[in-house]
Amino acid sequence: MRGRSIVIGDGGFVFALEKRGYVKAGPWTPEAAAEYPEAVRQLHREFLRAGSNVMQTFTFYASDDKLENRGHTQRFTGEQINEAACDLAREVANEGDALVAGGVSQTPSYLSCKSEDQVKAIFKKQLDVFVKKNVDFLIAEYFEHVEEAEWAVQVLKTTGLPVAATLCIGPEGDLNGVSPGECVPSDSSKLIVGINCHFDPETCVKTVKMMKEGVEKAGLKAHYMSQPLAYHTPDCNCQGFIDLPEFPFSLEPRILTRWDMQKYAREAYNAGIHYIGGCCGFEPYHIRALAEELAPERGFLPAGSEKHGTWGSGLEMHTKPWVRARARRDYWEKLKPASGRPYCPSLSMPDGWGVTKGHADLMQQKEATSPEQLKALFEKANKGH
Amino acid sequence: MRGRSIVIGDGGFVFALEKRGYVKAGPWTPEAAAEYPEAVRQLHREFLRAGSNVMQTFTFYASDDKLENRGHTQRFTGEQINEAACDLAREVANEGDALVAGGVSQTPSYLSCKSEDQVKAIFKKQLDVFVKKNVDFLIAEYFEHVEEAEWAVQVLKTTGLPVAATLCIGPEGDLNGVSPGECVPSDSSKLIVGINCHFDPETCVKTVKMMKEGVEKAGLKAHYMSQPLAYHTPDCNCQGFIDLPEFPFSLEPRILTRWDMQKYAREAYNAGIHYIGGCCGFEPYHIRALAEELAPERGFLPAGSEKHGTWGSGLEMHTKPWVRARARRDYWEKLKPASGRPYCPSLSMPDGWGVTKGHADLMQQKEATSPEQLKALFEKANKGH
Amino acid sequence: MRGRSIVIGDGGFVFALEKRGYVKAGPWTPEAAAEYPEAVRQLHREFLRAGSNVMQTFTFYASDDKLENRGHTQRFTGEQINEAACDLAREVANEGDALVAGGVSQTPSYLSCKSEDQVKAIFKKQLDVFVKKNVDFLIAEYFEHVEEAEWAVQVLKTTGLPVAATLCIGPEGDLNGVSPGECVPSDSSKLIVGINCHFDPETCVKTVKMMKEGVEKAGLKAHYMSQPLAYHTPDCNCQGFIDLPEFPFSLEPRILTRWDMQKYAREAYNAGIHYIGGCCGFEPYHIRALAEELAPERGFLPAGSEKHGTWGSGLEMHTKPWVRARARRDYWEKLKPASGRPYCPSLSMPDGWGVTKGHADLMQQKEATSPEQLKALFEKANKGH
Amino acid sequence: MRGRSIVIGDGGFVFALEKRGYVKAGPWTPEAAAEYPEAVRQLHREFLRAGSNVMQTFTFYASDDKLENRGHTQRFTGEQINEAACDLAREVANEGDALVAGGVSQTPSYLSCKSEDQVKAIFKKQLDVFVKKNVDFLIAEYFEHVEEAEWAVQVLKTTGLPVAATLCIGPEGDLNGVSPGECVPSDSSKLIVGINCHFDPETCVKTVKMMKEGVEKAGLKAHYMSQPLAYHTPDCNCQGFIDLPEFPFSLEPRILTRWDMQKYAREAYNAGIHYIGGCCGFEPYHIRALAEELAPERGFLPAGSEKHGTWGSGLEMHTKPWVRARARRDYWEKLKPASGRPYCPSLSMPDGWGVTKGHADLMQQKEATSPEQLKALFEKANKGH
Repeated sequence: MRGRSIVIGDGGFVFALEKRGYVKAGPWTPEAAAEYPEAVRQLHREFLRAGSNVMQTFTFYASDDKLENRGHTQRFTGEQINEAACDLAREVANEGDALVAGGVSQTPSYLSCKSEDQVKAIFKKQLDVFVKKNVDFLIAEYFEHVEEAEWAVQVLKTTGLPVAATLCIGPEGDLNGVSPGECVPSDSSKLIVGINCHFDPETCVKTVKMMKEGVEKAGLKAHYMSQPLAYHTPDCNCQGFIDLPEFPFSLEPRILTRWDMQKYAREAYNAGIHYIGGCCGFEPYHIRALAEELAPERGFLPAGSEKHGTWGSGLEMHTKPWVRARARRDYWEKLKPASGRPYCPSLSMPDGWGVTKGHADLMQQKEATSPEQLKALFEKANKGH
Repeated sequence: MRGRSIVIGDGGFVFALEKRGYVKAGPWTPEAAAEYPEAVRQLHREFLRAGSNVMQTFTFYASDDKLENRGHTQRFTGEQINEAACDLAREVANEGDALVAGGVSQTPSYLSCKSEDQVKAIFKKQLDVFVKKNVDFLIAEYFEHVEEAEWAVQVLKTTGLPVAATLCIGPEGDLNGVSPGECVPSDSSKLIVGINCHFDPETCVKTVKMMKEGVEKAGLKAHYMSQPLAYHTPDCNCQGFIDLPEFPFSLEPRILTRWDMQKYAREAYNAGIHYIGGCCGFEPYHIRALAEELAPERGFLPAGSEKHGTWGSGLEMHTKPWVRARARRDYWEKLKPASGRPYCPSLSMPDGWGVTKGHADLMQQKEATSPEQLKALFEKANKGH
Repeated sequence: MRGRSIVIGDGGFVFALEKRGYVKAGPWTPEAAAEYPEAVRQLHREFLRAGSNVMQTFTFYASDDKLENRGHTQRFTGEQINEAACDLAREVANEGDALVAGGVSQTPSYLSCKSEDQVKAIFKKQLDVFVKKNVDFLIAEYFEHVEEAEWAVQVLKTTGLPVAATLCIGPEGDLNGVSPGECVPSDSSKLIVGINCHFDPETCVKTVKMMKEGVEKAGLKAHYMSQPLAYHTPDCNCQGFIDLPEFPFSLEPRILTRWDMQKYAREAYNAGIHYIGGCCGFEPYHIRALAEELAPERGFLPAGSEKHGTWGSGLEMHTKPWVRARARRDYWEKLKPASGRPYCPSLSMPDGWGVTKGHADLMQQKEATSPEQLKALFEKANKGH
Repeated sequence: MRGRSIVIGDGGFVFALEKRGYVKAGPWTPEAAAEYPEAVRQLHREFLRAGSNVMQTFTFYASDDKLENRGHTQRFTGEQINEAACDLAREVANEGDALVAGGVSQTPSYLSCKSEDQVKAIFKKQLDVFVKKNVDFLIAEYFEHVEEAEWAVQVLKTTGLPVAATLCIGPEGDLNGVSPGECVPSDSSKLIVGINCHFDPETCVKTVKMMKEGVEKAGLKAHYMSQPLAYHTPDCNCQGFIDLPEFPFSLEPRILTRWDMQKYAREAYNAGIHYIGGCCGFEPYHIRALAEELAPERGFLPAGSEKHGTWGSGLEMHTKPWVRARARRDYWEKLKPASGRPYCPSLSMPDGWGVTKGHADLMQQKEATSPEQLKALFEKANKGH
């Protein structure tokens, strides 16, 4: 099966840089591209070394309406952030043989019921930077509503560049009730469709399969993409890991191992997915695991495998003999890892407020949430338990 | 309690850089200091930003006997690696207000029953570099045998620099059966004693307390230090996480949250520990959590808190109202995080081969383990289950 | 809502008497009705006292083809067993105000592909005893194939007595792929339909709801019944708890508490189910919990509540003050009980051999499984893991 | 090892009969001996059939001070209850070849700080019935305070009958801080000492071993006995399962399997324990498992094994081939049973009020706890969490 080309994506920057100290959980905005370029550059390099074929610009939530939102004090304009992100991605892409993808994502304007024109204008502004900076292709990702994703694709397609569009939905469909099988693009030329974020690899691959069935049923063709979480989420409802009580600060026990990742890569490949990457929670070693699993198909190992023995074989050089005895695929594939947390459950009951676009609670505001608003939210939350 | 000075340590480089692609699990050697200085420099910077007062040179297992061990192809001499590590630590320390500590750790020579003189010569070689590079103080860490730690301290003390010495033992004592309460230094001037690695924070703090009781019972005084794992290990035996079946590639579900870390910082402080840091598994956000917990005592927050709201307060700016409702200490302190792994247990049975220094299986060799040796190990391991 | 009549069923005899020492797991046949009448009588009495309105004859698997099956040495004829079971049920029913139901269940003959006439003759033989012994109504229960259940109902209906028919299927339908919504009886007069065994209460209530929707969609009416397991089975596939690796000797950690049972009673009642009872795993206190939960609707508590304070109120008389503090509904409803088994997972992977009626492995034989057959089975099982 | 005689005890009546509807949780008194003799007789018979060599009179908490305690409305005098219990035990013992043991347990009088004479008078009154009814030996069981146990033994020894004395303590010792190793009887002739209730088999065997070491260190000899819970309690503190939040109504997930019981029997035997039985949670099949495990040493299987294939061999006759594949020791010994409860933890934090004899909260009263007292307790309990 060497014939089919496989693209290895990169991992999510927002969560990785939050742990490194450069992104603030809550706003999740990417001003670090301009503020701390060496940290962003280093993460790009690690993903490149791990095997990523794509350097996605660190422009998640870098639309002007988001940057202004909720009291963020801006030391940099949206344009500066987007430009810096493009420069960093290009710099590192050139160190290897990777492509640069300019990325847009869902907007507060859509959630706050702004018009189609207003929302499209937001995307256009980021796009102008991407065009100026000569990105190789475009990604519209992290859309909870199919409608907004379509608007984004329409804007991005005006450039003539290839466009990848991924929704952050699961098998139950988007927040307006559109099912994965209904996500059939009217014009699939130069289009990659798929899923990113919100769910674990197993769920994302399942959802992409449902999309693929819908597209094929309609007699169309497309390329497929999955960039799931690196967190196990068997207990999620339709809104994904956002609703889990552990989001975003206690997700640690859910982090996938490298062996879970190899399983994901194989399943995604078998499902006919071409563009296989990751989102929140992915660290460089997770991407390397994808590249190692698919090395037979791709014909080569990533640079980072210099520091990794396949299936644990590096342990042959460990000090302790019983750890050397773990230097084999069989051991790691079968192991059911313990959590070390005997007072914790294995699954959680997700929140389920069931509100979406149009609901007053979801109108986005520029000011920080006031103490009165927070108090009202705490009470609502406690009542729900 | 502003009066007592607190030192915040850094996190373990070996595991953090393994995930980033620059250290190989198995040999665990630090050639990246010379090979990939930008990756090592970036990690130093992240710990500095997170609040670390100490930049420890990335010289773990950088003794010549270890570097030669088990077939490692050396592009760099031990001297080059140790020098590069000192330069990187100093460079970043100067960007803030941190000290540089030169570090040595246990040697294959001791495990292979070499003489006291031979082992001491190994330490001396690393020490010569540290002296030349003007480190501020010295750390002898990760010793499973008290005897070897004492040899190391004797060598390090010849410099007149302050010395910190940490064992990787738990409440049951070292591999020769020496209990924590018996670890009383004969000369405690300019000496910091404590525990690092192998066990979770709870266990390490408990073990340091036992050491403290022993020291105080002997009518002596000392300074105390703890640099535990960032993994929950309630199920370990005397050899720590090495013996857990998940070591080293499936430890993810055991990773501590930032809230677990705040609890650790408070408990360590209450136990009278002055030097509070971390070892394997610690990421920059874990160190930041220590610094945030102890901010009232230290009088300031770390630079990295610019991107972190205390106790989740950054969530006030999250898009979803039910996530904003999590912006409170009460929520995160009480949460019992689920593993998302319903087919996995909460505890594991550790391996327990019960061999230590002197046993033939523990003689270290330069050559990689042969297939015949591996086969014999696999069989031994399978019989044990 | 006093208007609607509720029938409280009894619990499963086979599992309860296995634990008491009178039924052999494997054959699961009810010869104890003739062999150890005092044990069977006592269990009837306990269910009566717990609130059961029905004494079901202990005639599960008491068809001649089953009794002969697999090497069972018969000290009693099928007729003797069926007669003794009727006498015991009637004796105890008369001690209270309960009805007697004669019960038939699926046959080895059907599994072994015997003809409709042959299978019906099997049912007829048991039925003759029930008629002779004047049972009040009939139950055809524990059918994995809708077709066989229909044959049984046709036979039982010839008596003119009311008939209850329950399948042991889940939401995925029967082993031939017939879905719950398709289980619409052609003639629903004097017919109660529902689900028993194989799944936990939550799953059974859900499946009965699907049956009800099917019946109502067809413009028909029926009465509904559920007699689930007293074991939690969220991890089952279509064949239910038989496929769980813990079946039948390690199901203990899955046993429902009395509070789980009260929840079941309320959910079954709210779903419009009239006949609410139990199957394998139910002990008398489980049935009492159903009767206590529905006491407001039924207007009275069962006799057995003499020895039980509602929602734990009996603890008011406990020696220890902190146990007295548990004498409240709120405490027991919210408690998430620990398993005390930190090395065990919370869910299991069920076996899934996927064979059903017609497959050679399922042909039933009179002789005990031979060592060669067993060896072949062990190998098949091990390969599957 | 046929030489050593082994006594198989019976299981706890209080919990078994609570589930059958004849004992009230909270007071836990045994009036059923007089009120529902057929239920008590049947349980005796099941234990006899399962292999018990001893029929212990159902006289737990049948002292007059306990029966009067906390508002119990008495239809029977203490004497009537004790006499009825003796008659039932003797009747069933004679059906086989078992001994009758008259049993006393700790008293509210001791907890309420009555004098030694007053407490001894309480024991004397039960003893008079036992002597009149000609029991074969005596058991003083379920003592949390060594002092009270000694008083009981002194009273019982006046009869000249053999006496067995068991404490309900763990490795941490009794509620006054007396350690297991200190429980050395001054006169061990005709004395059996050991542990019952409060902890799981593993813990009880460990505690008996500590007692044995103490006795042997003192140069004495004794016979040993263990009658543990049938609940896993790895998370208990010194007061045992009483303190677990699941006590007494949500202990189901902790129930031991028959295979856990075989392991217990073997460990108890290897520890040199002669009298191996059970307490709360034990059902007849648990006792049968003890007798089956020790059948090689005792030379015979119990009557109840007629309905049980050793190590699951009865499954050879199961309908489904994959269940037949489980008819082997290897399968059941290795299985880690799932709880089917993914939202529940594996361990609990026990209550720890830390009050014992002498504390006002522990003074026992005849009246039921008043609503005001309960409210105060609820508040105390909630504060503790």
